[in-house]
Amino acid sequence: MTAVRILDRLLGASELHPAGRRIEDLETPVPVVDLDIALANLVRWQDHLDGLGIANRPHIKTHKLALLAQLQVALGARGITVQKLGEAEVMAEAGLADQLLTFNVVGAAKLARLKALARRIDIAVVADSPGVVEGLAEAGRSAGRDIRVLVECDTGAGRCGVQTPQAARDLALAIDRHSGVTFGGLMTYPKSGTRARTAAFLEEAVAHLRQAGLEARTVSSGGSPDMWSSEGLSAVSEYRAGTYIYNDRSLVARGTARVEDCALTVAATVVSRPTPGRAILDSGSKALTSDLMGLTGFGSVPAHGDAVVYEVSEEHGFLGVADDARVPAVGEVVRVLPNHCCPVSNLFDRIVLVKGGEVIGSVAVDARGRSQ
Amino acid sequence: MTAVRILDRLLGASELHPAGRRIEDLETPVPVVDLDIALANLVRWQDHLDGLGIANRPHIKTHKLALLAQLQVALGARGITVQKLGEAEVMAEAGLADQLLTFNVVGAAKLARLKALARRIDIAVVADSPGVVEGLAEAGRSAGRDIRVLVECDTGAGRCGVQTPQAARDLALAIDRHSGVTFGGLMTYPKSGTRARTAAFLEEAVAHLRQAGLEARTVSSGGSPDMWSSEGLSAVSEYRAGTYIYNDRSLVARGTARVEDCALTVAATVVSRPTPGRAILDSGSKALTSDLMGLTGFGSVPAHGDAVVYEVSEEHGFLGVADDARVPAVGEVVRVLPNHCCPVSNLFDRIVLVKGGEVIGSVAVDARGRSQ
Repeated sequence: MTAVRILDRLLGASELHPAGRRIEDLETPVPVVDLDIALANLVRWQDHLDGLGIANRPHIKTHKLALLAQLQVALGARGITVQKLGEAEVMAEAGLADQLLTFNVVGAAKLARLKALARRIDIAVVADSPGVVEGLAEAGRSAGRDIRVLVECDTGAGRCGVQTPQAARDLALAIDRHSGVTFGGLMTYPKSGTRARTAAFLEEAVAHLRQAGLEARTVSSGGSPDMWSSEGLSAVSEYRAGTYIYNDRSLVARGTARVEDCALTVAATVVSRPTPGRAILDSGSKALTSDLMGLTGFGSVPAHGDAVVYEVSEEHGFLGVADDARVPAVGEVVRVLPNHCCPVSNLFDRIVLVKGGEVIGSVAVDARGRSQ
Repeated sequence: MTAVRILDRLLGASELHPAGRRIEDLETPVPVVDLDIALANLVRWQDHLDGLGIANRPHIKTHKLALLAQLQVALGARGITVQKLGEAEVMAEAGLADQLLTFNVVGAAKLARLKALARRIDIAVVADSPGVVEGLAEAGRSAGRDIRVLVECDTGAGRCGVQTPQAARDLALAIDRHSGVTFGGLMTYPKSGTRARTAAFLEEAVAHLRQAGLEARTVSSGGSPDMWSSEGLSAVSEYRAGTYIYNDRSLVARGTARVEDCALTVAATVVSRPTPGRAILDSGSKALTSDLMGLTGFGSVPAHGDAVVYEVSEEHGFLGVADDARVPAVGEVVRVLPNHCCPVSNLFDRIVLVKGGEVIGSVAVDARGRSQ
């Protein structure tokens, strides 16, 4: 089946609510996703990973939509990545049966939820300390089903993860000794621009594991900014990218995507034109977020000379329009390209879908707010 | 009735869901509101405004809870302030019948919603251009009930608003000429630290209005950072503050509140301790937001030597703990004081309430996500 037909089949099974036909008539602020662009992004990336012989495990934290997770899998992804248990539960409910949860599961309540999930779907998790492994092992034993655990490695991002390749081996051995869990491999979220360093860490860890008689069946890396670089992927068997489905202003600034590859914009209405070059939008930090991602401003409007949302308050966006660009009038709907698309999805109950240049309806953002 | 009994009565009528008894047992991340602190904040501010003879019209965008809006009114607030129509609708549903919507209502869909609201409750709105007034007038005529319109004045914040006192008078005259609307007064959201400049603008506008035969029955100012200063309020008849009910790290940094006056914290669990001084929390920008408010870091943990959340990704908070403070262990729940409490409320479906040091349950955040 062609990618377009796969999308049409999934849309046919989706609960679309009517939202008018024209973007100009939408109630704003609201995120709008151009499905033609998103589909092209998905196909291009799946083809790229297929060519490299690397499995695709897209991160659904970007869109939080069952529809798009199903689309990613139907187009060839091995499974999905989730960041929180709440996302995993929502996606399991929607039939996504192969998931990697790249977050330490800690505490009795969350381990009980993991146990319930492990009984329903194939869910792998991560750990970076013996204490986390012990909790997972107990959950696995009590689920009556071994839980696959990947060792999270800190290859330079300074977030979670064991600090050295030797520590990765030691934790893998600890996982291997416990009943209720099996060692599944290595996971890292590398800092952008550290592919060589990450590769060295992972290769050394794999070698240590072999010496200890263990195999890293999965070596999972991720990150959107460097996704198109083939450097330093020798040890990597699986890639987790999230933002690529929509792209955003930060990825355009880094050269990872072009403006025409950006599928998500926030439709916003001009509510005031207090001075000649200033237009106030009805979308502030509660619609665009305050994520700067190293950029100036909180978003831009490509259709108006790339005018920048130079300031936000909670419900106002301050748009500065250059002298040579047309300033949108009060009542006009503009489309803001946000700095970072992922947290925008998380702010809205529903998202509007566009196909063939026309609004086709809105869908619920299934995993919105599932941060627990 | 004492303030405590008013709160108890409202709690008795609220739909509380069980959430355990101890903060350490909560599913995290989740915002926790200490009602004893919030109540003291409300009483102190109401007393202060009563002493000044200024009406209290608290902004509910901070908490988005019907319960707390009702509490504010029961304690003496004249009515409430809302920033978006969606908030107004939710609060009207909860019986809040005196509202000021401090946002230009623009476009056919939103004007139809305003018309429906104007039939149900006493709602005043703002305008800063003749085009906005025309839409409001049509809505008022079609509602069969005049809508009170305040002229929004830009007294230095550079957001919405007419630019001069003369322009305020001219727009007031335009409102006065239209059927369907009545001129209700002036509204400004002054930039922090510009009380004198704001006072000069408002006084001049009031004088111009008098000369034109119009009275500014309401002169509404707002803002939390300067709220305790009595300077420059001579023309002001009503004050809109929002953050004061909870307070936050930014107001502590500005000296507006003390840490012990902060009612909202985000309960977060330590999920990793990858290095001795680094603790990774399960609360990132999707729980704390990326609002910096001029501060360093995204929040702090007062109980651990004021340790700072020095970095966030979407679901991780990077907590740096000083050498002389105890580093919380994996599995421990800490309470993060966010930089800015208002957008935090907007990220969660439910919020946990604490009273007398005990968790008493959770309530739905009624107007969460109502940015349209």
